[in-house]
Amino acid sequence: MKLFNYWRSSSSYRVRLALHFKALPFEYVAVSLIKGEQHEVSHRERSPAGYVPVLEVEEHGKPAFIHQSVAIFEYLEERYPERPLLPKSLVAKGQVRAMAELINSGIQPFHNLSTLNHLKTLGVDEKKWAAHFIDQGLAALEQLAKQHAGTFLFGDSFSWADCCLLPQLFGARRFGGNVDGFPLLTRLEKHCAELPFVKAARPDAQPDAQPS
Amino acid sequence: MKLFNYWRSSSSYRVRLALHFKALPFEYVAVSLIKGEQHEVSHRERSPAGYVPVLEVEEHGKPAFIHQSVAIFEYLEERYPERPLLPKSLVAKGQVRAMAELINSGIQPFHNLSTLNHLKTLGVDEKKWAAHFIDQGLAALEQLAKQHAGTFLFGDSFSWADCCLLPQLFGARRFGGNVDGFPLLTRLEKHCAELPFVKAARPDAQPDAQPS
Repeated sequence: MKLFNYWRSSSSYRVRLALHFKALPFEYVAVSLIKGEQHEVSHRERSPAGYVPVLEVEEHGKPAFIHQSVAIFEYLEERYPERPLLPKSLVAKGQVRAMAELINSGIQPFHNLSTLNHLKTLGVDEKKWAAHFIDQGLAALEQLAKQHAGTFLFGDSFSWADCCLLPQLFGARRFGGNVDGFPLLTRLEKHCAELPFVKAARPDAQPDAQPS
Repeated sequence: MKLFNYWRSSSSYRVRLALHFKALPFEYVAVSLIKGEQHEVSHRERSPAGYVPVLEVEEHGKPAFIHQSVAIFEYLEERYPERPLLPKSLVAKGQVRAMAELINSGIQPFHNLSTLNHLKTLGVDEKKWAAHFIDQGLAALEQLAKQHAGTFLFGDSFSWADCCLLPQLFGARRFGGNVDGFPLLTRLEKHCAELPFVKAARPDAQPDAQPS
């Protein structure tokens, strides 16, 4: 497998966490969002929308491309079920996916690169904008965590919800959101930070990482 | 099953399409977003974030709540596999989910009620804002459709991608996006519009629908 991704992209980081948790080998291919490599013809052939991450897999001996972190995650979970990132019960699965979606569709879209670029053209303060959506979304997630968290965001097993949480807290700090207001989420993050597969997936551990 | 939802909510409409396609009986419970019923204590107990749709299901004889349309969809697909909304191959599944996510996380968050309310406080023109993200997202989806569409958005079977497309085109018209620029997507929509389960799921066919 090849992962076309970018060290600092939040949804790339999610997929790296899933791959490293499942201990799946993959080739890391950097696509620089800052240099605009996502818009180059070669990448558009993989992702017409010009997104990262994209996972290249083989099907019937030919390469095939899966994009969108949620779709990549579900592919990995079904193809490589050995180290599961979802609980067993259908209701519990739904609750993990709902927490992940709260981040995936409820927070992250508001501070991705194309949104921030559009805000600039409108003269809107991007940091305040991002902080508003991050605070609102993390507040809802902290509530859900009170119902469901153990040593991880859902119970006592690392899940797809944690794969979304860690990049979201990384993004929150980057875009000026207040993470101190969410003691449970940051406690879970601290616990995860010590795990070797998490260390391997972190933005600053990637080959294309730049000094901040 | 009970579906807590709102006639005009785009993600509620997605889940209704899935339920009607699968011919699953459910109790319709209206939650008026205009009256603010999503913020009432009784609804917050079902969804701490105050979202619709929420699916109430039974587990071990007790009610359980699943929120976020994507999580509800995956629950329904696994619990009631008889009339599938995903193709069989893992790669094809990934491609359907990616098209659905392009809408779910790439377009819809930018024109949901809480985003539009926030834009008002900033003095940003909401219609122009919504049109920008709708046009950008549907352009990418039209490209993907050229690769994958048959009589439906992915091949010749109605899928979860269509469950997301129909509400998105409904939302596009509502928020002033230009759907005429996407001849393939609107052709697929026209084909779907004649199907009885689509007619049953439409916003204007719901008990809480208001005259426009």
